[in-house]
Amino acid sequence: MIVNITLPDNTSYDITIDSLKKMAFDRKVVVVTNPTISGFHLDYLIDKLDAKELSVVTIPDGEKYKNMSTIESILAHCFEHKLNRSSLLIAFGGGVIGDMTGFAASIYQRGIDFIQIPTTLLSQVDASVGGKTGINNKYGKNLVGAFHQPIAVYIDPYFLSTLPKREFGAGVAEIVKMAVTFNKEFFNWLEENDLNSEENIKIAIKKSVETKAWVVSQDEKEKGLRAALNYGHTFGHVIENETNYNTYLHGEAVGIGMVMANELAVKVGLMSEDEAFRVKKVLEKYDIPTKYKIKDVEDFYEHFFLDKKSLDNRIKFIVPKGIGDCEITDKISKDIVIEVLKGFLK
Amino acid sequence: MIVNITLPDNTSYDITIDSLKKMAFDRKVVVVTNPTISGFHLDYLIDKLDAKELSVVTIPDGEKYKNMSTIESILAHCFEHKLNRSSLLIAFGGGVIGDMTGFAASIYQRGIDFIQIPTTLLSQVDASVGGKTGINNKYGKNLVGAFHQPIAVYIDPYFLSTLPKREFGAGVAEIVKMAVTFNKEFFNWLEENDLNSEENIKIAIKKSVETKAWVVSQDEKEKGLRAALNYGHTFGHVIENETNYNTYLHGEAVGIGMVMANELAVKVGLMSEDEAFRVKKVLEKYDIPTKYKIKDVEDFYEHFFLDKKSLDNRIKFIVPKGIGDCEITDKISKDIVIEVLKGFLK
Repeated sequence: MIVNITLPDNTSYDITIDSLKKMAFDRKVVVVTNPTISGFHLDYLIDKLDAKELSVVTIPDGEKYKNMSTIESILAHCFEHKLNRSSLLIAFGGGVIGDMTGFAASIYQRGIDFIQIPTTLLSQVDASVGGKTGINNKYGKNLVGAFHQPIAVYIDPYFLSTLPKREFGAGVAEIVKMAVTFNKEFFNWLEENDLNSEENIKIAIKKSVETKAWVVSQDEKEKGLRAALNYGHTFGHVIENETNYNTYLHGEAVGIGMVMANELAVKVGLMSEDEAFRVKKVLEKYDIPTKYKIKDVEDFYEHFFLDKKSLDNRIKFIVPKGIGDCEITDKISKDIVIEVLKGFLK
Repeated sequence: MIVNITLPDNTSYDITIDSLKKMAFDRKVVVVTNPTISGFHLDYLIDKLDAKELSVVTIPDGEKYKNMSTIESILAHCFEHKLNRSSLLIAFGGGVIGDMTGFAASIYQRGIDFIQIPTTLLSQVDASVGGKTGINNKYGKNLVGAFHQPIAVYIDPYFLSTLPKREFGAGVAEIVKMAVTFNKEFFNWLEENDLNSEENIKIAIKKSVETKAWVVSQDEKEKGLRAALNYGHTFGHVIENETNYNTYLHGEAVGIGMVMANELAVKVGLMSEDEAFRVKKVLEKYDIPTKYKIKDVEDFYEHFFLDKKSLDNRIKFIVPKGIGDCEITDKISKDIVIEVLKGFLK
């Protein structure tokens, strides 16, 4: 399966959803990966790669290393191996690897090519479209970075075989997000099919990627519609923050966040209780958490303002309109939000 | 005088060559400058600026601070002042300030707007067109960076009143470069007019900026023609390097480099001795150095390979074809180059 992504400048790239084929590059190639993925799958990848000169840089695993100093270590590797402007980076790992490799590629000699080979379900459906790259710093997540598009993305479902079950669920949460906000038919399909089959997961990845590509094509620099991809994130970020980023995976927090956003949608009359229930049901099928015990609703509410999307002191909520459509609004009053949050006190 | 620059994505910006007018911004603005410019001209600038919130970050002066840690200090200032994606940076200084402010703007929250107010002649004619931003590292100059276009450039000749004479000459060298490689008529004009008059310097800046804009529009990402802007640089970089970057200003080294490139052009029959002499004459009118004593020609030749443009082990020379045209070639044999270098032994 191939999804072609056309960019605003009329260039385009392919997302190939299939087993990796042999690839040959008449230029220097650096693979950026982490010890976990390297241990499981580096041989499998290297076996497919033929390059003028190939080297691998392994960076530590996890969000806390997603910083400028790791970027500098990737760049140093590239300089030591005398990469030039025609050289290529390959991101081989999850979202952290993809974001950092893309950012390093965007600033090495003012920009060189890179390819994404995402190995987690989340990065396969989410990070392969949109061109967002970046790192964290003490002020927050992804606050420094660039828009830099890959020249190709290869999604091989084989890598999912070694993915922990919880991480699989976190990826499914993003798939559900795409369906609820933009594609009713896709949501119906998700209710009826099991993503644990390889054929079905390929279809779901393809549909998610196509949906996201459509959204991004409407709004590359996130001035409007693209914000809808943050459905579940406004609440999710607070949950991640309150639990010190060590209780829930990002996708899991987004799962809970979607349930909260749905309650808000029900409260303001945009979604029926039945529709909210159906979304919850699909999430629970993959053991994605849908419950969270809020300690203090006022405190939870204050946390919204720490999000970078709220730097102007307005909270933007993305609320579904039924299933398959959504609304972006900063007009919901604090009282209504507090009332919804109170539903999560027990 | 206004020069409009159209970019490949069909957006455009204006370069205004005139006394600064009042400017009002309904957004947060951060001015990035250094202590020297700040001491001479910050009050003059602030007096013209009206912003929702205005702050100034002063970074240390000079190439050796053009690194990632200074970028991080600019970003930190922006985060502390809660700049958002609609905020604006203003680069107020020479080329170093422009390159770093542009780079910081390109990666702050994946890219925000910036304006250039270049205060040296070199940055006025050179850095205001092309969108190159970047920093140095231990591997070389400008090896990390981004292409990021300003939304406007304001060139006020008033700032040149405090510019040291040698720095003025370094800027003139870049102007001469533009004329010799691309614009015969402009070169004739330079022979007949004195750039120390305010009216003339404005004309020269305008013509240089227009010429560079034309070159860049043909070749935004430096795949071909744009390399011609490196006329004088292949030799100049070696001279800078041999003298540890502390004897000549960049523009002065380029001045000597042009004289060397002209000798090469004469040797291979692309330029007459008279034409080479005329170029030298214009440079000397502004006390730009045109002589350099090479110690060891073999050693000088080897130095070419340290340049990032030669990572593939071929030296690219930009040699004028008469006056007003040039040729980019990697086909000149070592013997011929060595013979030319020998002319600079005494």
